[in-house]
Amino acid sequence: MGVSDDDGGAMVTRVEVLDHAACWSLLTEAPVGRLAVSIAEHPDIFPINHVVDDGAVLFRTAAGTKLAGAVLGRAVAYEVDGYEAETGTAWSVVLKGTAEELDRLVDLMDASELPLFPWLSSPKTRWVRITPTQLTGRRFVVAADAKLSV
Amino acid sequence: MGVSDDDGGAMVTRVEVLDHAACWSLLTEAPVGRLAVSIAEHPDIFPINHVVDDGAVLFRTAAGTKLAGAVLGRAVAYEVDGYEAETGTAWSVVLKGTAEELDRLVDLMDASELPLFPWLSSPKTRWVRITPTQLTGRRFVVAADAKLSV
Repeated sequence: MGVSDDDGGAMVTRVEVLDHAACWSLLTEAPVGRLAVSIAEHPDIFPINHVVDDGAVLFRTAAGTKLAGAVLGRAVAYEVDGYEAETGTAWSVVLKGTAEELDRLVDLMDASELPLFPWLSSPKTRWVRITPTQLTGRRFVVAADAKLSV
Repeated sequence: MGVSDDDGGAMVTRVEVLDHAACWSLLTEAPVGRLAVSIAEHPDIFPINHVVDDGAVLFRTAAGTKLAGAVLGRAVAYEVDGYEAETGTAWSVVLKGTAEELDRLVDLMDASELPLFPWLSSPKTRWVRITPTQLTGRRFVVAADAKLSV
């Protein structure tokens, strides 16, 4: 197909695989991420604020919300990313796991100390923890001579 | 639960529903988004660059990649968002639909004129279109007296 061959060859992107330490560091620094969940093979995405604590991602939600109903007990994927147009560098970290509500008092007390600002606020917030089963990250570096047309 | 009640009441967030025109405008301006797809109830997320054209979201992928295998013919959700820490304003637009590869020559010729920079480059790129079945957007505005602890 002429469309693909004409401009695809000029694009030079180097992909670097990030190790777990780099992934956790980027997760910790990113204030916002996107939570993907699937119901009957139909995915949905929710932007949320999170914190990283003790090898897991924590966020708040409220009972009865769409988010709470969608995620609890389900397999989820959580993504954070960053992009610098000036350098043509982008990175993305994806954490997969299961979302579970914190219910032990000691966990709740610990979680209350964490800084967090929920996009969806409510007087009845609950804490959700995603314990990871898979963590992957990549950094995309565009070579200086590549055509950039963002 | 004391944890929820203690700090939940101080948080004041106003949620505004965005109309379709506002959603398309934000989609058009955003250079990057996240594509969620589900396989056997396990969601995955891919950050991608997109363009908006003729009431649809277009992006490029390459034959044989994980992304191509995951999305073609499937229900997907595509999300763009923005966040301004200074004003405490955040917005998110989610478009749901089915991802289909462009195969008509006229579509491919049109698509080749669109500006786009794929995170995953390849000499054999293909065009994918998400024709929306649902489009929703929200803007979150945090009142000045709310506690912000991002």
